[in-house]
Amino acid sequence: MRGTPVVAGPSSYFRPENIDELPAAERDLVARRERLLGQAYRLFYERPIEIVRGEGTRLYDADGAEYLDVYNNVPSVGHSHPRVVEAIARQAATLNTHTRYLSRGILDYSDDLLATLPPGIDNAMFTCTGSEANDLALRLAKGVTGNQGVIVTRNAYHGVTTEVAAISPSLGGENTVAPWVRIVDAPTGDGSEFVRQVVAATDALRQSAHGLAAVIVDTVFASDGVVPGRHLPGSPGFLAPVVAATRAAGGLFIADEVQPGFGRLGSWPSAARTSTGTGTGTDTGTGTGSGTGRAAHDTDFTAPESGLWGFARHTIVPDIVTLGKPMGNGMPIAAMLARRDLVDAFGAEMRYFNTFGGNPVSIAAAQATLDVVRDEHLPQNATAVGRYLVSQLTALAGTAAEIGDIRGAGLFIGVDIVDAHGQPDEARTVALLNELRRRHVLIGASGLANNTLKVRPPLPFSISDADRFLTELEGALTTLRHQRRSRPSA
Amino acid sequence: MRGTPVVAGPSSYFRPENIDELPAAERDLVARRERLLGQAYRLFYERPIEIVRGEGTRLYDADGAEYLDVYNNVPSVGHSHPRVVEAIARQAATLNTHTRYLSRGILDYSDDLLATLPPGIDNAMFTCTGSEANDLALRLAKGVTGNQGVIVTRNAYHGVTTEVAAISPSLGGENTVAPWVRIVDAPTGDGSEFVRQVVAATDALRQSAHGLAAVIVDTVFASDGVVPGRHLPGSPGFLAPVVAATRAAGGLFIADEVQPGFGRLGSWPSAARTSTGTGTGTDTGTGTGSGTGRAAHDTDFTAPESGLWGFARHTIVPDIVTLGKPMGNGMPIAAMLARRDLVDAFGAEMRYFNTFGGNPVSIAAAQATLDVVRDEHLPQNATAVGRYLVSQLTALAGTAAEIGDIRGAGLFIGVDIVDAHGQPDEARTVALLNELRRRHVLIGASGLANNTLKVRPPLPFSISDADRFLTELEGALTTLRHQRRSRPSA
Repeated sequence: MRGTPVVAGPSSYFRPENIDELPAAERDLVARRERLLGQAYRLFYERPIEIVRGEGTRLYDADGAEYLDVYNNVPSVGHSHPRVVEAIARQAATLNTHTRYLSRGILDYSDDLLATLPPGIDNAMFTCTGSEANDLALRLAKGVTGNQGVIVTRNAYHGVTTEVAAISPSLGGENTVAPWVRIVDAPTGDGSEFVRQVVAATDALRQSAHGLAAVIVDTVFASDGVVPGRHLPGSPGFLAPVVAATRAAGGLFIADEVQPGFGRLGSWPSAARTSTGTGTGTDTGTGTGSGTGRAAHDTDFTAPESGLWGFARHTIVPDIVTLGKPMGNGMPIAAMLARRDLVDAFGAEMRYFNTFGGNPVSIAAAQATLDVVRDEHLPQNATAVGRYLVSQLTALAGTAAEIGDIRGAGLFIGVDIVDAHGQPDEARTVALLNELRRRHVLIGASGLANNTLKVRPPLPFSISDADRFLTELEGALTTLRHQRRSRPSA
Repeated sequence: MRGTPVVAGPSSYFRPENIDELPAAERDLVARRERLLGQAYRLFYERPIEIVRGEGTRLYDADGAEYLDVYNNVPSVGHSHPRVVEAIARQAATLNTHTRYLSRGILDYSDDLLATLPPGIDNAMFTCTGSEANDLALRLAKGVTGNQGVIVTRNAYHGVTTEVAAISPSLGGENTVAPWVRIVDAPTGDGSEFVRQVVAATDALRQSAHGLAAVIVDTVFASDGVVPGRHLPGSPGFLAPVVAATRAAGGLFIADEVQPGFGRLGSWPSAARTSTGTGTGTDTGTGTGSGTGRAAHDTDFTAPESGLWGFARHTIVPDIVTLGKPMGNGMPIAAMLARRDLVDAFGAEMRYFNTFGGNPVSIAAAQATLDVVRDEHLPQNATAVGRYLVSQLTALAGTAAEIGDIRGAGLFIGVDIVDAHGQPDEARTVALLNELRRRHVLIGASGLANNTLKVRPPLPFSISDADRFLTELEGALTTLRHQRRSRPSA
């Protein structure tokens, strides 16, 4: 069973068989890594980078060279943010235990966090990773409903435990999901076809032996190529009928906020405050309609319409919400939030203890991160810079035929890379990632065809950062065009 | 489905229905906690404690009162150890990313860690929790063997993801385990009955549709009441025939070192260096034979017989080793170590990425922790103080009939609490935990009958700490005896 992994088609990852093409320093590290960590680990880029330092929106390699980070959503308030670092250092020097002693920090943070959710989402349970949060959400949903069936999108990714890998077709397609999973196409356009498929799947599961336990969606559909909701103030988004159909079939609706959560999608004014508007506060896409350029409002973060959560763009209230990645700016902390009656029903049947879950150091990091999101108005920055990026990308698309649809909200923007016929061009997308890396701009791709540039930088990303990215993107596209002309066989 | 959890019999945990008996400060915190975190969370003790600070083997409550910590194995090198705190603070201020960029820290640590394992355990994969490590180990075992069946002990606990909760009967008995799980009794005496049951279970699974994927054991059997191996130098322990039977049936042997790992069981001289001995270096129990009081040797930590691992006491080499709790002294970090051919086979089929797994800050904490374990000779301390504790506990048992069997290695000692007929006495065990808490000594219990005091303090536990524990234990036993006499109905 030994062997080199078979990578079909172009890959965003380093290929181990190309190790001899690397400079000596990277070659030694890559060889050591393969020896110690094995073949299941992947490295970004044709030429992997050794990163040694980070600050704000910048990363630095071992030679001191600087890179613009357009990829990392985990250090969401910026790499090595001093307030988060200070909170971690202070708490680590004071106490780090667990949730079987009383501790005020976890209660203060839970109060603070739950106040940003709609009434009805009243309880928090803490884990260390988004995978654990989704795993717990499924345990709860299956336990409370007594059903097994789960509905996910075609390229969904919800984590790596056995249970959530079994609902993550992005890890290996339809063959890797469990028999109790039904797959629907990710939404496009106004989402009506998505709604139709979910309703059909809930009906099918309800009539099967599995029953329906849950519909779970990443509310920005990150791995499916970025599909933010297109909320019109006062009217529900396309997830509203999905939630209704889920409950009608006896299931629970789980909003996976691991990717969109904590302000990445930008602030957005509440329907009440913008009832005269015709667009939305944060829509930044060109795909199925465009935002009207409404100025960002100062946002009440205790209101559910604060812009912290992707589901709120659809004017829905989920049964369960899962959080992860940006929650502690890199410290391992995640959570499952849920209706109190669901948590009570679960707690009456079984205890839950996660050794590191909700530990004081992780909580301190999470509290500092939430404070910085608020104090530095990062959702508002996401709205403003995101809107600028989309307008400039749209302008660039006028001269660069490789740019197809652009969809986004705040600082989560998907840019489709297409061929001369407008079809997904994965090879060019991968070449673009590597050319941008040569230009010291770090970015990734997603989507079923892996042809969607994922613009997802740390939230303090500035207009100046955006300009640098746009300049290098335009340059990279030009370079690739010249390479294709000079190497027609490539 | 609302309702107060039904707790049968005595409980080590606070009962929510007793909230009105608490002082005002704790009552408010407990009420807030139930409102925010819900009923699945449990608190230690009749009267929960608000812990606000820790240092070495001491914890401090909100009033500044000091407690001796005989419970916490996660802050293994001592609460708030300055070298670990400094490593965390320094790395957090520098960089915290993920494993898709090259990083030297994870490679240096992997080299250092794997050198303490026997040849053949060559690869490390990093997760955030022991649950995730065991979950990954099962994914690997099932994937590589093509089988589903797993054998565990009767009160086994391997974690809280859906997959590992399904192999953890301690969470809810036989009814909670999956259909592909077989349960055997935990070892007693020389382990021969345990071996017989495992062999029978491997045969049964091999002949079933499930097949045998893995036998997984916590090598100190912590939740089963503490059963350290009783290795005689030069001869294998009772896990050796278990490993042989596992492989003969086509399965893999997983050593869960989340509880025993990283030196808790004490240093022990290698067979080669102690070939004239008749006892063992770290055996500290009286249950089925006693150690001969061999002096602790200075240990070569690059040797597999370093004493860092529980499985090494049985002179076996597992196929997979899982690590967790003490690994980063409280920072969420865990790992699965395995034979390279297994990791290669897994990696050829699928990628593995854990967002926070192996992040630079967690790795820095783990490296500092391992450095401190070595530099402060903590396994040697565990051996010396553990041996002292057992000799004194054995002396105490001569006058305290409540003390039954004593089993242990290093600073993991199980002390059975029994009734006048020598039978497990859970009620008295729970009363003892609460009386010790009143005396500012924090300790827990385990075992199928929940009557085993779990002596499992931070590893810098001193002879003076041991004396204080012994004094309070004797005093608590006396107090409980008086209470029983004065309240015969209790």
